[in-house]
Amino acid sequence: MRETTLNELTEIALKFRDEREWKQFHSPKELAIQVILECGELLELMQWKNGAELEAHLAKKRQDVAEELADVLHGVVLIAAEMEIDLGKAFVEKMKKNAQKYPVHKARGSAKKYNEL
Amino acid sequence: MRETTLNELTEIALKFRDEREWKQFHSPKELAIQVILECGELLELMQWKNGAELEAHLAKKRQDVAEELADVLHGVVLIAAEMEIDLGKAFVEKMKKNAQKYPVHKARGSAKKYNEL
Amino acid sequence: MRETTLNELTEIALKFRDEREWKQFHSPKELAIQVILECGELLELMQWKNGAELEAHLAKKRQDVAEELADVLHGVVLIAAEMEIDLGKAFVEKMKKNAQKYPVHKARGSAKKYNEL
Amino acid sequence: MRETTLNELTEIALKFRDEREWKQFHSPKELAIQVILECGELLELMQWKNGAELEAHLAKKRQDVAEELADVLHGVVLIAAEMEIDLGKAFVEKMKKNAQKYPVHKARGSAKKYNEL
Repeated sequence: MRETTLNELTEIALKFRDEREWKQFHSPKELAIQVILECGELLELMQWKNGAELEAHLAKKRQDVAEELADVLHGVVLIAAEMEIDLGKAFVEKMKKNAQKYPVHKARGSAKKYNEL
Repeated sequence: MRETTLNELTEIALKFRDEREWKQFHSPKELAIQVILECGELLELMQWKNGAELEAHLAKKRQDVAEELADVLHGVVLIAAEMEIDLGKAFVEKMKKNAQKYPVHKARGSAKKYNEL
Repeated sequence: MRETTLNELTEIALKFRDEREWKQFHSPKELAIQVILECGELLELMQWKNGAELEAHLAKKRQDVAEELADVLHGVVLIAAEMEIDLGKAFVEKMKKNAQKYPVHKARGSAKKYNEL
Repeated sequence: MRETTLNELTEIALKFRDEREWKQFHSPKELAIQVILECGELLELMQWKNGAELEAHLAKKRQDVAEELADVLHGVVLIAAEMEIDLGKAFVEKMKKNAQKYPVHKARGSAKKYNEL
């Protein structure tokens, strides 16, 4: 289902929300709080481990990672819908901006921030 | 561009990464840290304000919100690619699970957690 | 016990850690991840509610808030110890720096960031 | 200044706040958002690096780490004051609770969560 469009995700999320009459709770701020908490749950799956030990652990927790990623994506889609932001357009435009901040010839192989390149 | 597919987003993100030889830095853990920090930047746009004041502020900051949502989405897509997770499938399956945790007749109009319903 | 010193907190935290031989896990980075996750748990106590409803809720959850604050403080104390940072000194110096960033005559009654004052 | 008491930190923070008439903005929820964002800034100092490279980097960024720890501590102290929580007492009690969750004979040398011990 990698061919799923952002529109389809949005429709699923809004249908779920409206069936439960949850729009009243979904201010962008509450949703942003929700998204950062979901990111925390994602990061928690990776705590206290590194290297090969972490890799083996994540291989076992792949389903949990998938669910947390879905939760983060869910919140992102809801905020975009709430604020009438075209997420696909925002993504493409931000990547263009990133390409200017991190030109290939300067950024290749470097983990530095754009203002340190 | 609401018809953009998750596959297309992924291709853009991987092309950007590979041109810069950044795969070496993109462990799921570092990406999860990146995503939570981007969420922080999103939430920062909504700090210290509420109600009508926040709404007016966000209307002015719509472009910034769009960019932060794009950054969060970017990280999510990269983690999914790194771990070979089908994000569209994960989303649809998680929403089904949520539908069981929050049945309409119990959850309608309530902001309670599923374990308090 | 408001007279507890930072030194005393640190001693308690280090004794707890050393009895369990946990120093090996306590890199500043892992501890920083731990602290942000504890902050998430704190914020979770305040989700989806605002105004009088939130106030009533927090009055009931005061013990939980106290525990999450303790957890955040715990992580902060451990990072400071790990990096040989004098937390009391750092606090006093940062407050002086804040006083320069936010001079009283400009900042009074304003929620603006220092670079917008 | 490791002998600084929590009371002294609180007095500094409240004086700073009251001179600027900022109590009106300092709901526990806004402060909790502030604290999680400060944790993000702390974690950002540790991004994309690990092992010896991270250690060398942090040695250079010790002052920045100290300031971010101070900022997190600042927020914690303000929330405690706002909710009339005795932070020293909360800390000691939470450490006792942790000692029960992680008994020495089970937890020694293990990074597992208490519910996996």
